[in-house]
Amino acid sequence: MSDPMDLGKPREECGVIAVSSPGGDAARAAFYGLFALQHRGQEAAGIAAVDGRTMRIRKDLGLVAQVFSERDMDDLAGADAIGHTRYSTTGSASARNAQPFSVETRHGPVALAHNGNLVNAAELRNALLEKGAGLSSGSDTEVMVMTLASAQGKDWPERIAAAMSTWVGAYSFVVLTREGMYAARDPWGMRPLSCGLLPGGGAAAASETCALATLGCTGFREVGPGEIIEVGRDGFTRAGAISAAAKGAACIFEYVYFSRPDSVWNGFGVHEVRRRFGAALAREFPAEADMVVAVPDSSISAAIGYARESRLPYDEAFVKNRYIGRTFIQPTQSLREKGVTMKFNVLPEAVRGRRVVLIDDSIVRGTTAGPLVRLLRGAGASEIHMRVASPPVRFPCHMGVDMGDSAELAACRTSREAFLAEIGADSLEYLPVRAMRDSLDGACGFCSACFDGDYPFSVSGASGKEGFEC
Amino acid sequence: MSDPMDLGKPREECGVIAVSSPGGDAARAAFYGLFALQHRGQEAAGIAAVDGRTMRIRKDLGLVAQVFSERDMDDLAGADAIGHTRYSTTGSASARNAQPFSVETRHGPVALAHNGNLVNAAELRNALLEKGAGLSSGSDTEVMVMTLASAQGKDWPERIAAAMSTWVGAYSFVVLTREGMYAARDPWGMRPLSCGLLPGGGAAAASETCALATLGCTGFREVGPGEIIEVGRDGFTRAGAISAAAKGAACIFEYVYFSRPDSVWNGFGVHEVRRRFGAALAREFPAEADMVVAVPDSSISAAIGYARESRLPYDEAFVKNRYIGRTFIQPTQSLREKGVTMKFNVLPEAVRGRRVVLIDDSIVRGTTAGPLVRLLRGAGASEIHMRVASPPVRFPCHMGVDMGDSAELAACRTSREAFLAEIGADSLEYLPVRAMRDSLDGACGFCSACFDGDYPFSVSGASGKEGFEC
Amino acid sequence: MSDPMDLGKPREECGVIAVSSPGGDAARAAFYGLFALQHRGQEAAGIAAVDGRTMRIRKDLGLVAQVFSERDMDDLAGADAIGHTRYSTTGSASARNAQPFSVETRHGPVALAHNGNLVNAAELRNALLEKGAGLSSGSDTEVMVMTLASAQGKDWPERIAAAMSTWVGAYSFVVLTREGMYAARDPWGMRPLSCGLLPGGGAAAASETCALATLGCTGFREVGPGEIIEVGRDGFTRAGAISAAAKGAACIFEYVYFSRPDSVWNGFGVHEVRRRFGAALAREFPAEADMVVAVPDSSISAAIGYARESRLPYDEAFVKNRYIGRTFIQPTQSLREKGVTMKFNVLPEAVRGRRVVLIDDSIVRGTTAGPLVRLLRGAGASEIHMRVASPPVRFPCHMGVDMGDSAELAACRTSREAFLAEIGADSLEYLPVRAMRDSLDGACGFCSACFDGDYPFSVSGASGKEGFEC
Amino acid sequence: MSDPMDLGKPREECGVIAVSSPGGDAARAAFYGLFALQHRGQEAAGIAAVDGRTMRIRKDLGLVAQVFSERDMDDLAGADAIGHTRYSTTGSASARNAQPFSVETRHGPVALAHNGNLVNAAELRNALLEKGAGLSSGSDTEVMVMTLASAQGKDWPERIAAAMSTWVGAYSFVVLTREGMYAARDPWGMRPLSCGLLPGGGAAAASETCALATLGCTGFREVGPGEIIEVGRDGFTRAGAISAAAKGAACIFEYVYFSRPDSVWNGFGVHEVRRRFGAALAREFPAEADMVVAVPDSSISAAIGYARESRLPYDEAFVKNRYIGRTFIQPTQSLREKGVTMKFNVLPEAVRGRRVVLIDDSIVRGTTAGPLVRLLRGAGASEIHMRVASPPVRFPCHMGVDMGDSAELAACRTSREAFLAEIGADSLEYLPVRAMRDSLDGACGFCSACFDGDYPFSVSGASGKEGFEC
Repeated sequence: MSDPMDLGKPREECGVIAVSSPGGDAARAAFYGLFALQHRGQEAAGIAAVDGRTMRIRKDLGLVAQVFSERDMDDLAGADAIGHTRYSTTGSASARNAQPFSVETRHGPVALAHNGNLVNAAELRNALLEKGAGLSSGSDTEVMVMTLASAQGKDWPERIAAAMSTWVGAYSFVVLTREGMYAARDPWGMRPLSCGLLPGGGAAAASETCALATLGCTGFREVGPGEIIEVGRDGFTRAGAISAAAKGAACIFEYVYFSRPDSVWNGFGVHEVRRRFGAALAREFPAEADMVVAVPDSSISAAIGYARESRLPYDEAFVKNRYIGRTFIQPTQSLREKGVTMKFNVLPEAVRGRRVVLIDDSIVRGTTAGPLVRLLRGAGASEIHMRVASPPVRFPCHMGVDMGDSAELAACRTSREAFLAEIGADSLEYLPVRAMRDSLDGACGFCSACFDGDYPFSVSGASGKEGFEC
Repeated sequence: MSDPMDLGKPREECGVIAVSSPGGDAARAAFYGLFALQHRGQEAAGIAAVDGRTMRIRKDLGLVAQVFSERDMDDLAGADAIGHTRYSTTGSASARNAQPFSVETRHGPVALAHNGNLVNAAELRNALLEKGAGLSSGSDTEVMVMTLASAQGKDWPERIAAAMSTWVGAYSFVVLTREGMYAARDPWGMRPLSCGLLPGGGAAAASETCALATLGCTGFREVGPGEIIEVGRDGFTRAGAISAAAKGAACIFEYVYFSRPDSVWNGFGVHEVRRRFGAALAREFPAEADMVVAVPDSSISAAIGYARESRLPYDEAFVKNRYIGRTFIQPTQSLREKGVTMKFNVLPEAVRGRRVVLIDDSIVRGTTAGPLVRLLRGAGASEIHMRVASPPVRFPCHMGVDMGDSAELAACRTSREAFLAEIGADSLEYLPVRAMRDSLDGACGFCSACFDGDYPFSVSGASGKEGFEC
Repeated sequence: MSDPMDLGKPREECGVIAVSSPGGDAARAAFYGLFALQHRGQEAAGIAAVDGRTMRIRKDLGLVAQVFSERDMDDLAGADAIGHTRYSTTGSASARNAQPFSVETRHGPVALAHNGNLVNAAELRNALLEKGAGLSSGSDTEVMVMTLASAQGKDWPERIAAAMSTWVGAYSFVVLTREGMYAARDPWGMRPLSCGLLPGGGAAAASETCALATLGCTGFREVGPGEIIEVGRDGFTRAGAISAAAKGAACIFEYVYFSRPDSVWNGFGVHEVRRRFGAALAREFPAEADMVVAVPDSSISAAIGYARESRLPYDEAFVKNRYIGRTFIQPTQSLREKGVTMKFNVLPEAVRGRRVVLIDDSIVRGTTAGPLVRLLRGAGASEIHMRVASPPVRFPCHMGVDMGDSAELAACRTSREAFLAEIGADSLEYLPVRAMRDSLDGACGFCSACFDGDYPFSVSGASGKEGFEC
Repeated sequence: MSDPMDLGKPREECGVIAVSSPGGDAARAAFYGLFALQHRGQEAAGIAAVDGRTMRIRKDLGLVAQVFSERDMDDLAGADAIGHTRYSTTGSASARNAQPFSVETRHGPVALAHNGNLVNAAELRNALLEKGAGLSSGSDTEVMVMTLASAQGKDWPERIAAAMSTWVGAYSFVVLTREGMYAARDPWGMRPLSCGLLPGGGAAAASETCALATLGCTGFREVGPGEIIEVGRDGFTRAGAISAAAKGAACIFEYVYFSRPDSVWNGFGVHEVRRRFGAALAREFPAEADMVVAVPDSSISAAIGYARESRLPYDEAFVKNRYIGRTFIQPTQSLREKGVTMKFNVLPEAVRGRRVVLIDDSIVRGTTAGPLVRLLRGAGASEIHMRVASPPVRFPCHMGVDMGDSAELAACRTSREAFLAEIGADSLEYLPVRAMRDSLDGACGFCSACFDGDYPFSVSGASGKEGFEC
C-alpha cells in the first residue's frame, strides 16, 4: 500500500493535444483539452504555443489545474498550441522530463509532445551522441526532437516523415513550429490519435476524442497509421505519410482500461465496447447470483453490460474516494492492521445476504481484488463470483505501458487456483481473447500482446513471446 | 460558470472527527478520517493533538492531502486528536478561519472543531466583547471556544454543558483538552455525529460513519441530541447532556445530497434511502422510456432505485471529470460559445434514439439541468424526462448550509413551467415531501425546512416560513 | 558555528513604527520604515492598516522585503498603519507570534506592536485566564492587547494609560484603532521611541530616528517615559501619560551595538557617541601600534574615534560577506578543520608586519574575537591589541534583550587573563563604565545593568545583581 | 528608482568555482565558495557534482543561500563539483539560463559554468544549428557546451583546447566530467580565474581568490591566458593551452568595482590597488577640506587612500541599509516626493559645517552622486568636493559587463560641466587613465576599453572606439 491510490493497474504514459484556434486562445483551449486527458497522466503537464514568431512554453510537475495559472494562459498567446500530460514510468518524477520538449533548430523553434515508446530509442540516442550532439535529458522525446532538428527535407512534413522512418515503436505525437502544426502516428497505429474541427474555425488533434468533445469539436476522424496531419486554422489536412505496417496493432488495452468511456476510436465507443465485453462475459461465464456490482470506476460499463445480458439487477457496492491526489502520509503498521483504507468503502446494506457478481475490467498485479472481496464478505455477501472483463495480463508491454515487472503480474506469480484462493472469491473467470476480439466485430489490427504475447514487431533485448511468458 | 466545478448544489460547511488511539498515532488516524470526510469541505483542513501535556495544531487552506505532510504527522504526536475539514460559506478563503480553533484557558489548552451554525452567534459575540474579551477572528468557532474558556463547572463535561445551554442552532462538535476529548451535538440533532470503537482499543467520533468505517471502527452509535460523549482509550461513554429538544430536526438534506452513500445515520444507510427515494419517484411519476440515467455522482443511487422499480434498464449517459480541484483558468467568451465544458461529457451511443429518464438528486439553483439536457439532445436522445429525487428547494437554511440567495433558487426565481422550458426537457417531476418522509418509514424528527419552510426554531432576522417563501 | 552568521552578539527583540499619511499610503510608508529597522529583527514582519472602518493585517516569517508583496500594499489601504519587525528570543520561529497582534473589542478593532519585555507578563497572563479569557499565543503582546480590550476608560488614551499602569518592564509600543493611532513608552524610557512630522502632512513614530529619516520626517522628538502620543494626520500630540519613573533607565546598549549609527536619541547621535567611546578608549588604554582596524560593521565608528584620538591611521582589515541571510547548510567537520568561514576574510597586505589595534564594540559571548585575532596573525600582523569600546557584559537583561545564558557570557565563563589567552591577542582592555557615562556628558538616566548589575527595578525570579553576578 | 538597490553601477555577469575534495564533500565546499562570490551575481546559482559515474545538478533562481538546501548538499555527493552564480544582463530572469549547463555526450556527461561573453556567439550558434543541432536555451553557455560535445580530441583537455580555439571573447570557465575537472581562461585573460590547494588534499579554482581564501586554500596561482588547468585530488596541473594573445587584456574594472577587496590577482591585492587609486587621486586633485568620506561600500578603500595621502581625517557620512534583497514594493509618487530612500541615510553630526571630500569609485550612469550630494548638503556640509577614483566610463563593454546603454552613461549623456551642475557638488575630478595604470606599477596587459575605447579585438557589429565614443 505504498501508494494509497495504487489500484494495481497498468499506467499509461501520456496524453497529447494540438489546437489551432484562429481567435488566438489556442493555449487556453489546449488547457481544457488536457484537463479531459488528465486520466492519461498525472505526473506533469505542459503547453507550448506560437504567437507570430515567438514560441513560448510552460511545463511543470503536477496536475493540469495545478501547473497553469491564468497568467500562464496570457503568456502563452497565439493561435497554435500543443500540450501534454504525463505519467512517468520511472521511479522519480522530474520536471526535466516534462513535455512538450522544445529546441531551436536551423528551421526555427520546434516543440514536440508524444505518447508512446520507441523500442530503438537507445540506438537513436547513441547515433546522435556519436554525431557530436549533447543531450540534456534521458527522455525519448528529446531524442525525437533532436532527430527532427537534423532531419533532411524541404519542409516540416518531409522532415517529420524522414524522422519517423527511423523510429520503431509506438508513437502518437504532435509537433509545433512557426510554419505549421502537425499530428502523426506510428505505422502500426498503436496509440490512439484523432482530429476534429473546432466550431467557428480551427481544428484540434488529441489522444482521445473525449478531449475533442470537450472543446466542442465535430467531424472527428482518426489519424491513420503512418499518417501526418496538418492542424491549422482552416481545419486538418493530410500533409504526408510513411508506409503503414502490413498489420495494424492498435492497443486493445485502451478499450479495457485506459480510455475514457466517452472516447471513440476505430469507430467503436469505449463505453459500448466495455458493455459488450461485459455481455460476452455473461454469456461465457454466467453466475447464479442476485446482483452485479463493479470495481469503480473503470469496470462500471462492463458491469452494466453483464447485468443487462444476465438479467440481474445492477447495483453499487463500493464507494471510491473522489479526492484523488497524492498524499505522502503512510498509515502506521498499527493503523494498517486495523484495516484503514483510503481507496474503497463498502455499502453494507446493498450486499448483505446476497450472491454478488463482482466485475473487474482486468487483472494485472491483482492487488485490489482480494481486499474488495474481503470487504464484500465483511458486509455479509453470501457468495462472490469474480468476473474479469479481459484475459489475464501475462506479458509486458514494450510500447509505452507500464504493466509492472512480470514477477508482479498476478498471472505470472501464481496459478489461477492459487489466485482464487488468494482473493477468497467463490469463483473466478476471465473473458477469453477470442470473445474480446469478437466484441470488436472480429476486427483484426489490434495488439493484444499483453494478453497473448503476440507482439507486432521483434523487440530488441526483449524477443517477444518466448522471453516473457510466465 | 465562474467555478468550473460548480454544480449549482448547496454547500455543506464542515466535517469533524475525534480519535483516541492508545498507540499514540491519533493524528494520523484523524488524517485518514478527514480524507473520508473531504466531500464535506474542500477549503481548509486542520488537526490538533495532545501528547501528554502539550497540545499541537496544524491547519491551513487546501485539501486534506495538501495540508498535511509526513512531518506534520510526526509533530502531531499523541493518543488524542481532533480534526476538521471546512467549506467556507463566505466569499474569500482565509487560513484565519480554519479549524480546529485552540486557546489557552485557566483549565489548560482547549481545541474545538464544529459543523453547523449558531443562529445566536452575534449575540454571544457581543456578550463576550462587552465582558472585555478580544476576539481575533469572525468565526462562530472562536465564539464557542471563548464561551468554553469562561464557562462554569467543575470539569469539562460540566463546562461544555453550560456553554451548550447558551447556544442556539445546529452544532455537532468535538473538543480536545488535556483531561479528555468530547463529542457533542445540539439538542435538535441537526447535523450528524456518530461514534465507534477502534479495533485494538480506542474510539472515534465523526460527522459520518464513512470516516469511522475507513478507520475500521465497529459498534457505531449516534451521539444523541444534546448529548456529550467522552471519546477515550477505553471506548466512548456518556459524559453529560443537556435536554434534547421536544422534536428532533435531523437534516433531511444529508440523505438527499451531502452524506456519502456508505454512511449510516438514524439507522438508515444513505445509499438505501436514496434508492428508496428513486423507487418512490418511479411510483409517483413513472415515465414511458427506454432507459434511466443519473446526474453523476450524487444521483446514481436514486437512479438505480428508479430503474429497478420501473423495470427500465439503468445505464450511464455522462462522464464526469474525476480530477476535481480548483482551477482559476476561465474559458474565453469564444471558447464558451464553442461549448467548452469541464464538467460533463455525454456517451453518445448510449442514448441515441432513446427515450431517457434523467434522475437528479435535487434542484437547488438549477444551473446544471439545462446543459445536461442539451448534451442528451445533442447526442440524439428522442425524449428526456427529468425526475428529481427530492422536492424543489425553496427556503434558505439557517443551520449551516449555504443554499445560495433565495433569488438564485430555481424554485424561487421562476415557475415550474418556465423552468421546464428553460432546461428543455419533455417533462419534469419532483418527489413530494410526503413520499420522501414515507421513504424514511414515516419517521418524524427530520428538518425539511429547505423544502417546506418548517424551521425547528424561530430564526432572528429570519422569521421562518413567512419571510422567505417565494 | 551553528548559525554561520552568529557573531556572538546579543539580539534585540523588535522595531516598531506608526505612520499617519493623509494620502492613504500609510502601509507603504510603514514598509519603508520597517526596512530601515530591519537590523532590529529579521525573523518576522507585519503591518496593520485602517481604511475608514476596516482594519487589515499582513504578517509572516521572513525579512521585510520577503513578507510583503505589491498586492499586500494595495490591500493594506488607509491613512493609518503600524508595523513591526521581530527577532525572536525563543528557539523556534512561529508565525503565530508575529506582530502586530490584532483583536476585535467592544470598542472596535485594535492592533498593537511592541518592543520590549514585561517582567510581570506571567502574572498578567494568569489574571486574564482566571477571568475566563482564552489566549491563543504565548506572546506578551497578546497579553497586552487583551488587557487593552478590557481596560476601563472613556477613550483609547485613557484605556491605554489604565493598561500601562499594570505593566512592569520595558515597552515601547504603537496602537492602531479606528479612532486614532498611539505611540507610548514605559515609565523608565527603556527602549527608544521617537516621533516626527512627515513632509506634506501626517506624522510617524518609530523605534529609531533612522526610520523617520528614511521617510523624510523632520521635527523629531522623543516619546517621553510614560507618555502617550497620538500620531495623526495633523501631526503628533500628547494624548495622555502615566507617571514617569523617578530615575530613567534608557538602555545604554542601544549606543553600544543595537541602534543604527544614523539614529539619534536623548539628543546624542549614535555614530558620534561611538566615536566618543573610541576616543575615550584611546585615552584610557593607548597602544603602541601602526594602525587601527574595526570588527565590521558595528565597531567602525568606535575605531574611527580611536584612530583619530590616537593619531594612528584607520584602515580596514576584514571583509564581511554582505549577503546576509539564513542558510541551513552546515560545513562538515572536514571543512571546518580546513578553516571554512562565511563571516569574515582578512585583507592580508593591509596588516602584514604591522602592529594592529583591533576595536570591538563589545564582548558578550566572546566567540568572534578569537577567530579574528587568528585571521590577523595568519595574515602576518606582528602585534594585536584588542580594545573593547564598552565594559564586559556580565549580567543578563530582563528588559527584552537576549544576552544569552550567563554561562555563555565571556566575562562569566572565564577570567580576563584566561580570555586573553583564549583569543590570543597581545593585550586586551575594556572601556570602563565611568568613561562610557562620561561620553554621554555624565547623563544619568541610563540603564547599564548588563555591565554593572544595577537593574532599574527588582525582577521577579531574578533578584538583580546578587543572583547573576559571575 | 525602479530597483531600490540600483546604484547606477555596471553589473558583472558571473562567478565560477571548481572544487576537488577527496573527502567527497565537494558540493558543500563549492557552496561556501559561491557564497563568497555572491557579489558577482545574485540572480541564480547552481552546482553540479560527480560521484563516481553519476553527475547530478541543482540550479535555480535566487541567492546561493536560497537555492540550496541541506538535502541538496546530500544529493550532490562526490569529490568533484563546479558551481556558478549569475547576474543576468537580460531583462527577465529565467531558470532556463541558470548555470552550470550540463549535457550527455558521446564521452559521457559534461557540465560547464562560465563567466564572460563570447563576441562570436551568434556565429557559433548558427554553425551548430546548420549542422542539425537543436538548442534549448539562448545562452552562450549552451553553445559552449555543445561545441565541447562535438569537439575533436583524444581526451578532454584536447577537446577543450579545440573548442577554445573557436571562441572569441572573454571566458573564464570550469568544466566537470567523469574523467576530470578543468578550469580555463581566454587567451586575453580578460576575466579573473585563480586556483589554490585545499588544506588536507584537493584543489579549487575560482573567479576570485576571496572564494579560495574562504575555503582555507593556500598556494594561489592564476590560470594563465589560454591555459587549461586540471583541478584534482592531487592538486592542480597544467593540462593544456592555446596560444595566449600577444597583449593581455585583464579587465581593469575588476579593481575599480567588481572584485571583493580581499581578492588578489595579477599579484595585486584589490584593497591595496584601490587605496593607491585614492592616493593618486589625492595627489592629482587635492582639495581644501576637513574630512574624507566614501560612497559605501565599494569606495571605502579609495577613500582611506585619499585620506591618508592628503592627511585629512577619514570618517563615515552615510549608512547603507545592509538588508540587501529584491523588493517589488515601489514608493508612490507622493512618497518619492517626500524623499523616501531605501539606500542611504546621512550621519548629520559628522558633516555639519564641514568641507567634505566625497570619494566614489566610478561614475557610470551617475544616478547616485546627485542624491548623495543633496543628502550631505541637507545635513549641513559647507562644501562638497567629489573625487572619482577612476576615469569616466564612456564606452560599452563587449566582454560580459553590462554598463548600460551608452545613452545612459553619464559621460555620454552630458558634459562634465553639466554633470557637475546636475549633481550639485562644488568640484568634480576623475582619476586619469594614466594615473590608474601607474598605480598598477605601469603594468600593461590590462583592458581599459570602457574608459578609453581601446578594445583588445575588433567587435562584430560594434567596431570599437569609433562607433561608440560619445
